[in-house]
Amino acid sequence: MTPLDPIHIYEVSPRDGLQNEATIVSTDDKVQLISRLVAAGVQDIEVTSFVKPSWIPQLADAAEVVERLPKTPGVNYWGLVPNRVGLERAIDTGLQCVATFMSASETHNQKNVNRTWRESLKNLRTVIGDAKDGGLTVRAYISTVFGCPYEGEVSIARSTMLARELREAGADTIVLSDTIGTGNPRMVRRVVSAAVDAGVPLDSLALHMHDTRGTAVANVIAGLQAGVRAFDGAIAGVGGCPYAPGAAGNAATEDLVHVLEAMGHATGVDLGLASQAGAFLSNALGRDLPGRMHRVHMSQVAADEQTCSA
Amino acid sequence: MTPLDPIHIYEVSPRDGLQNEATIVSTDDKVQLISRLVAAGVQDIEVTSFVKPSWIPQLADAAEVVERLPKTPGVNYWGLVPNRVGLERAIDTGLQCVATFMSASETHNQKNVNRTWRESLKNLRTVIGDAKDGGLTVRAYISTVFGCPYEGEVSIARSTMLARELREAGADTIVLSDTIGTGNPRMVRRVVSAAVDAGVPLDSLALHMHDTRGTAVANVIAGLQAGVRAFDGAIAGVGGCPYAPGAAGNAATEDLVHVLEAMGHATGVDLGLASQAGAFLSNALGRDLPGRMHRVHMSQVAADEQTCSA
Repeated sequence: MTPLDPIHIYEVSPRDGLQNEATIVSTDDKVQLISRLVAAGVQDIEVTSFVKPSWIPQLADAAEVVERLPKTPGVNYWGLVPNRVGLERAIDTGLQCVATFMSASETHNQKNVNRTWRESLKNLRTVIGDAKDGGLTVRAYISTVFGCPYEGEVSIARSTMLARELREAGADTIVLSDTIGTGNPRMVRRVVSAAVDAGVPLDSLALHMHDTRGTAVANVIAGLQAGVRAFDGAIAGVGGCPYAPGAAGNAATEDLVHVLEAMGHATGVDLGLASQAGAFLSNALGRDLPGRMHRVHMSQVAADEQTCSA
Repeated sequence: MTPLDPIHIYEVSPRDGLQNEATIVSTDDKVQLISRLVAAGVQDIEVTSFVKPSWIPQLADAAEVVERLPKTPGVNYWGLVPNRVGLERAIDTGLQCVATFMSASETHNQKNVNRTWRESLKNLRTVIGDAKDGGLTVRAYISTVFGCPYEGEVSIARSTMLARELREAGADTIVLSDTIGTGNPRMVRRVVSAAVDAGVPLDSLALHMHDTRGTAVANVIAGLQAGVRAFDGAIAGVGGCPYAPGAAGNAATEDLVHVLEAMGHATGVDLGLASQAGAFLSNALGRDLPGRMHRVHMSQVAADEQTCSA
């Protein structure tokens, strides 16, 4: 049997996952979480954000986190940068990969970064250009592609235009993002197909699907059917967006790994070790997290231990 | 635009949902739950089980529940019957619709009903025949089609053969069931297509997908793509199978309604009222339940109330 395409998992838990958590996670625990994810085989991890530290106290230790990352060949660490100042801070820490962002809907963009989407696009063109000139790898998130908490439905033409513009500005990856989990499999296929029709290469697209309405895995599978091979995940499904009311965490990394591997696609991620990382994070936050496979795995481990001691 | 096919939702929360719950739900609360589901527009509800009352104390009030059901035109109430004795008890209550069951895997069947699968098939042929002779409508669950907790993978040939045999015995609906949530979208498409190839009509098939591994919605969407138009759900995702270690609840009805309607398929179920039924059940059980939309809905209602009082 011909092996199916491998899938690229991009881990967002240390940044997107933690930024909305009330419990401040220590730098030690963040570094341990990231080390566990690396040990599980995750090759791309968004480790922190270089927005103004006062905006997101949870991520104020950005420079220290980067300083203490395990140096592992083949692993890329990413920092989120909103603007030129953030980019400079990221470069100062020695990061080689940065992610920048804007929203497809005007109101969400205004509330999130206090700019019109046109201003954001102009800003991102500069940030992406500067980053590429500095030899960095760049991904560009387009938020609210599948729905806006303030405006509802978002025009596919707008998202498609932004995808093309950001790609032309030099972004290596365009991340179509379902910020509040209002996407559905049909919409995913339509959006991906519209982006490809507009000239955005399929292999430059990634999907970032929140699970607020229980659709994240189904939306990833729809993206897979549409030819996308890169998906964002947050271990244990941790997370949410502070500026998007009702938003929940990203697709749980371990659940994506399970279903994609079960369907025959290699992810390079060890499910057992990823599940342990999820259990570790759940413990660090002191609460249950929505991902499933880390719980299935941990209960199987517990059952095995019980059998052994009986 | 041509309207897409309507989807038939079959609600299992009062039976499959509650049978594994440690907290005994009062008959009053069961009747209120069912009444709320009926008010939400659900037309088929599995209200209880006629297995030996001592097996599942939660459902020992079967006859009283049926006695107190709201009589609503167009609504069908179903009782689970394991054998001839159960069928007689169901008929005594006046129910017109019964569901019977067996497993595709030998070990699960043995542990669940203490019979070989061949004995179960023979038993079900009689039960289905008697039920049909009595003018009842019958569905037949085939459990562990997508994986067995004891044997792992289950042969598609076995499931397909059972589907054909049970259909020939007279079952109106064959329910391909993912008892422990190990199915994946690719497997769903293969199993449905094998059953259809074996002569089981597509419109006699239903899917019953547990969400243990976070794949239930994706598996339902795969079934939809394969042409299935009938899906089981449990409001708020309540449930699990007492004889299947690690199994979690069925696909959350409100989450299925949300995604199917968002994709353009009518379900006939009101999302707001279904969400309220989910919140009611969560409250009756005194714990959070995994479904998403009932929480999204209730937090939106709370936000609206806050806005009004400010």
